Amino acid sequence: MNNKTSSGNFLEDFRLDQEIRHATPRTVGWGDVALYTALYGSRFPVFSGDSFSRKLGLKRAPVEDLLAFHIVFGKTVPDISLNAVANLGYAECRWMAPVYPGDTLHAVSRVIGIKENSNRKTGVVYVRSQGYKDGDELVLDYVRWVMVKKRNESTPLVAERVPQPASAVRPEQLRVPAGIDFSKYDYEMAGSPHAWEDYAVGEKIDHMDGSTIEEAEHQMATRLYQNTAKVHFDQHRQGQERLGRRLVYGGHVISLVRSLSFNGLGNATFVAAINGGRHINPTVAGDTIYAWSEVTDKAEIPGRKDVGALRIRTLALKNHPADGFPDKNSEGNYPDNAVLSLDYWVLMPRR
Amino acid sequence: MNNKTSSGNFLEDFRLDQEIRHATPRTVGWGDVALYTALYGSRFPVFSGDSFSRKLGLKRAPVEDLLAFHIVFGKTVPDISLNAVANLGYAECRWMAPVYPGDTLHAVSRVIGIKENSNRKTGVVYVRSQGYKDGDELVLDYVRWVMVKKRNESTPLVAERVPQPASAVRPEQLRVPAGIDFSKYDYEMAGSPHAWEDYAVGEKIDHMDGSTIEEAEHQMATRLYQNTAKVHFDQHRQGQERLGRRLVYGGHVISLVRSLSFNGLGNATFVAAINGGRHINPTVAGDTIYAWSEVTDKAEIPGRKDVGALRIRTLALKNHPADGFPDKNSEGNYPDNAVLSLDYWVLMPRR
Amino acid sequence: MNNKTSSGNFLEDFRLDQEIRHATPRTVGWGDVALYTALYGSRFPVFSGDSFSRKLGLKRAPVEDLLAFHIVFGKTVPDISLNAVANLGYAECRWMAPVYPGDTLHAVSRVIGIKENSNRKTGVVYVRSQGYKDGDELVLDYVRWVMVKKRNESTPLVAERVPQPASAVRPEQLRVPAGIDFSKYDYEMAGSPHAWEDYAVGEKIDHMDGSTIEEAEHQMATRLYQNTAKVHFDQHRQGQERLGRRLVYGGHVISLVRSLSFNGLGNATFVAAINGGRHINPTVAGDTIYAWSEVTDKAEIPGRKDVGALRIRTLALKNHPADGFPDKNSEGNYPDNAVLSLDYWVLMPRR
Repeated sequence: MNNKTSSGNFLEDFRLDQEIRHATPRTVGWGDVALYTALYGSRFPVFSGDSFSRKLGLKRAPVEDLLAFHIVFGKTVPDISLNAVANLGYAECRWMAPVYPGDTLHAVSRVIGIKENSNRKTGVVYVRSQGYKDGDELVLDYVRWVMVKKRNESTPLVAERVPQPASAVRPEQLRVPAGIDFSKYDYEMAGSPHAWEDYAVGEKIDHMDGSTIEEAEHQMATRLYQNTAKVHFDQHRQGQERLGRRLVYGGHVISLVRSLSFNGLGNATFVAAINGGRHINPTVAGDTIYAWSEVTDKAEIPGRKDVGALRIRTLALKNHPADGFPDKNSEGNYPDNAVLSLDYWVLMPRR
Repeated sequence: MNNKTSSGNFLEDFRLDQEIRHATPRTVGWGDVALYTALYGSRFPVFSGDSFSRKLGLKRAPVEDLLAFHIVFGKTVPDISLNAVANLGYAECRWMAPVYPGDTLHAVSRVIGIKENSNRKTGVVYVRSQGYKDGDELVLDYVRWVMVKKRNESTPLVAERVPQPASAVRPEQLRVPAGIDFSKYDYEMAGSPHAWEDYAVGEKIDHMDGSTIEEAEHQMATRLYQNTAKVHFDQHRQGQERLGRRLVYGGHVISLVRSLSFNGLGNATFVAAINGGRHINPTVAGDTIYAWSEVTDKAEIPGRKDVGALRIRTLALKNHPADGFPDKNSEGNYPDNAVLSLDYWVLMPRR
Repeated sequence: MNNKTSSGNFLEDFRLDQEIRHATPRTVGWGDVALYTALYGSRFPVFSGDSFSRKLGLKRAPVEDLLAFHIVFGKTVPDISLNAVANLGYAECRWMAPVYPGDTLHAVSRVIGIKENSNRKTGVVYVRSQGYKDGDELVLDYVRWVMVKKRNESTPLVAERVPQPASAVRPEQLRVPAGIDFSKYDYEMAGSPHAWEDYAVGEKIDHMDGSTIEEAEHQMATRLYQNTAKVHFDQHRQGQERLGRRLVYGGHVISLVRSLSFNGLGNATFVAAINGGRHINPTVAGDTIYAWSEVTDKAEIPGRKDVGALRIRTLALKNHPADGFPDKNSEGNYPDNAVLSLDYWVLMPRR
């Protein structure tokens, strides 16, 4: 008879090049699609209507890119980040193929780096996580690094390695879903007239609308993703911590911001890659989220005249509208109410 | 480079007889059905169980009439009512065919009237909106008029027209879903013994139960319908307005009241038409909704002995039970806690 | 013209051996699966991923056992317990066959006992309730007894009978889903290494995690099950009662606790039977639920080497972690923050 409960992995439990097959394959269904809509109100048309997607050459409406991300990410939590002190970064995140209702997702991670901190109480583990659907088709690929507690300060670490994730995904690495033809894109049905050509590098967009987060919403979202991180669900224990409140899953804020971004980036059809992201300040229920974006780069997709890529930096704020584009000051410090900075590539139809 | 965000249409942006194809086709799925049940607890059997519906001759359980309404309505919001000051009225609203999981809905509106108010700051726009499913089958048809801001007080309006919507849908205009045979109706499985013959004009029914609305519920409902009206989601800005709170989407109250009406109108199988509706006072989260109904008319359906129509007037109240049937006083003023008056036709089986 | 609203059955409305076909057949869909995940965050793999279930020999992932229970239970409420003073007990509850998305559930109850209380104001009604899916396949069978008000103190009761439900389901009565082969069980994908052999009678497990309940969550859950008991939804009236709050449906707590139990009982694949359950204290929104379990018995399943049964007693607490296994004192009294004691059988793979 041994202890049956899992308390997750600590820094010394990880080995370089270790491969972790994460638990709980998850069939994504029509219910997830509806809940995602109810939680974020997304209107990106490719994910909303089968007819719109079929006209472009897809078999039906796939599920939102970020829903697939959250489900894959959730699978990694029990193995990678149950003892995380902080989520330090994401990089090289690419969507490789659309996920459709009925597909079953599973996730695998490889440990690509380990580094002990000088305090010897914590360290950083770097993983490359991959999401697959039935038949082992790769759908998502990203690098993530988290600060993790050590089980025991005196345990010596056998090996260390610090990888250098790319600062950005290169345009030629972006994957356009197979079979899609953006020349068939119906701008009127999409609800936004602006194409890739209409955006200029340096252009800033205030997404205008605000959305207030409720406890029931972020809890339901986070459980939908089978994300088990304790800080999101347990007010009794969180009430005794410094924040005093349940912490909203950072991915919930990302999805909310993506939906808000429809106003101004309505034809940013797919999120193709995330170059990096930072959760600047914690978000709790009751906070109202606003966001603005800047176009930081434009790129052609090799061999395609129907679709291009925009690189976007989005800054999300809590309880403060985004007009005036509040940003880092000259010392590089974000405003107190900044909650998220996200650097990502979207695919957008060309005329 | 032009402004990418949409701030919606103002009065002078509408033209008489203009046709607006609304954005974002939306596939209605099994997830919407479950969420609708979770949000309202509806028990009308035709929408709950495939076996019940098949016995009547339908191919399976369709989605609730009002779910289809909300989705179609939601599509019209970005074009018609983003700058609405007030929803003034509905009329001539008819359901033309059932919507099934898997159907994709889209919406089209035609501007049938425009009138400037004497203050020249606002005006009224009248639209006939229609919802379609794949293959362009008409599923919903209604007239709505909203008070909309002018962009500029000094803009002269080119043309004005004030339509006169019918005060009620005529019984012969009500559509019974094709292929349905109400003589197969199973009253025991429906949970209510009362047929069309059992109701008398003038009869009043207290629906007894109350239902308290939570912020997460009305927000999830309204986002499910992709309704983007800002007043429902942004507590930060609403906190600075007169109401001080997020406003609950009026359609959320209508659906809640329809579900409450099961107790007393359990065999009011389909909502066939809405003759008119008025949101008397605002509803906010925390309010408990009660309702009572009066049978205001009974009608045969031409050529049918298996089904008849009842015209119902339902009054919904907040934070006050409906026993005693609180109503307008002699000056025509509703009680302070009245939130909704709805005049509609339902289809009910005959013995 | 007669009264159209239902006020439910009172003690004298029940007859011994009466059979009640409950209303509202309900098709369980993919949306219910997603909502159940969003409400409880369950990770039991058989219900999560089609691929996992197919490997075991099932046609796809069935819906959670407790979701089927709640839907069947909800159907019985309008007929059995609308006038209940207290839910006194459950017994002999067995799951007979898995339920899949697309199946339509209905419920039938037989009155197996009636007893008037000495105060003549209330009495106890005992029912055997059964849930069926299409083609009248039995999926769930349980005995329940509730204290119900009498309509009239002076009404004499014609007959009385007090049945003696079994104190526990016998192992040979447990049903293993047809066609399943647990020798194909993938412990790594399941996320937990422990098999039936690893558990010992008397072993206690702290499930560690806590989960805070929100009003919107328990209301949405309870409506999803079409459970119409008024105490869950009407804050206006509940505010005037002794509790002062909406009462959380006891089944919501059971499902929450089952999900928490994954940490420690991760391969407790199916809930096969409930021997008995008691809601010790009321739960309201804002409460954080913790739980611990004790293995009270182990049994082989006749004719099977691939799967065994564990009998589990789980105690759930509100606003108090479960470490230290708080339990009844020497006088048999539970701690003040105990909310649920559940005695049930689970199926678990053998090596």
